[in-house]
Amino acid sequence: VTRYRLLLEYDGAAYVGWQRQPDAPSIQAEVESALAQVLGGEPVMVTASGRTDAGVHALGQVVSFQSTVERSPIALVRGLNAVLPDDIACRAAGEVELAFHPIDSAVGKHYRYRVLDGVARAPLRRGQVYQTHKRLDLDRVRAAAMHFVGCHDFSSFRASRCSAVTAVRTLYRFEITRPVDEVRFDVEGTGFLRHMVRVLVGTLLDVSSGRFEPEDIPAILDAADRRRAGRTAAAQGLTLMRVHYPDGWPGV
Amino acid sequence: VTRYRLLLEYDGAAYVGWQRQPDAPSIQAEVESALAQVLGGEPVMVTASGRTDAGVHALGQVVSFQSTVERSPIALVRGLNAVLPDDIACRAAGEVELAFHPIDSAVGKHYRYRVLDGVARAPLRRGQVYQTHKRLDLDRVRAAAMHFVGCHDFSSFRASRCSAVTAVRTLYRFEITRPVDEVRFDVEGTGFLRHMVRVLVGTLLDVSSGRFEPEDIPAILDAADRRRAGRTAAAQGLTLMRVHYPDGWPGV
Repeated sequence: VTRYRLLLEYDGAAYVGWQRQPDAPSIQAEVESALAQVLGGEPVMVTASGRTDAGVHALGQVVSFQSTVERSPIALVRGLNAVLPDDIACRAAGEVELAFHPIDSAVGKHYRYRVLDGVARAPLRRGQVYQTHKRLDLDRVRAAAMHFVGCHDFSSFRASRCSAVTAVRTLYRFEITRPVDEVRFDVEGTGFLRHMVRVLVGTLLDVSSGRFEPEDIPAILDAADRRRAGRTAAAQGLTLMRVHYPDGWPGV
Repeated sequence: VTRYRLLLEYDGAAYVGWQRQPDAPSIQAEVESALAQVLGGEPVMVTASGRTDAGVHALGQVVSFQSTVERSPIALVRGLNAVLPDDIACRAAGEVELAFHPIDSAVGKHYRYRVLDGVARAPLRRGQVYQTHKRLDLDRVRAAAMHFVGCHDFSSFRASRCSAVTAVRTLYRFEITRPVDEVRFDVEGTGFLRHMVRVLVGTLLDVSSGRFEPEDIPAILDAADRRRAGRTAAAQGLTLMRVHYPDGWPGV
């Protein structure tokens, strides 16, 4: 038996998210069905580095599966791209040691949240940015975001139905930039809770609009209560950019 | 009467192009109908800096119209974005002198053609890049493209039904870069013929694949015969990036 990993890019708009659900289109179901075709009918179960929510995109989702069938990386990429729908693609493939697990082996993850803040829409980015008509106050937003960096209990910033045992996570990057006309929130950490990036960004949007002050953030973290944080920012602005592994796969 | 200009962004996939056609969706028809609504019912005729083909996109199309109705730039942007479909947006608006003409007043234009060359598809860019499975040989492509820069008769590189009186045009930039995993052809010139960028790029793709040699280009230009050049590259890879005017509108 051989263990493989795949690098996937997808537009999440048409799916209920990564995870397979009965009678609803999921990325997982599409990928497993494409793999079964490519591997000559052998059914496969695929594990992902994380379950992206409905509507969330990925540029660098990493997934893994075992198979008794031998396929070269290039054959997997070609074969999968020939059968996957237009909005899902395999960007790279490779064999990996049997002990590899896409979540447990990961050392970090990079998410990007994109906001278009102005009266002008941007049709060529539609569905991949969240639009707000009010210009963001990045001084306030950055002053607030600074409190998120480091090791914290993020209980206030996860979905109420998040089932993780501990909410302690470490964020080592929270960078907010304005390349031309959009605002990018680049968030990297060792792990993330359900909805965590979206609640963090939603709270920062609430800081920008004046609902919270930047210095309110420490108390919101301390409260460990989802009701104290801000709203959950819309899924379509979020993209899983990259999952980091000790071996650096798939390179640059 | 006041003359206005608008900066438009659009995804061309759903349209027969800029120009209005009976019983077919055009960008021009959408924009004129949106303007009529915003201007309280007054019918308007809009002129563009160029008629983008079916499927071609724009980040910076400039169009102009006259009206007896006074509207502030911000009211035009807001109003148009409220009524235009999702795949067309107004990015900026402004009053301009009555003598302004979006074609005649332009001093240059920038088009970008994007190619994804590899076995991996890219769902988040789908519809905005042209995909070829063979990796481009940029040394050959650049050696050929160098012959296009300057003032030439581009008769070999225009649609057979192009109606321009003279085919002499000046290209002052033909830059080919590979940012990460796509190839970009950035072409700037004082004016363009129908299909010109697409035939230039199509011919360069044929140089990459070996159908032509880079040193064949001068003879193809000299022939002034469309049949001597290469294929017309697909519309979806092409975007009108910017139209240059002496006053630099709309700024950066």
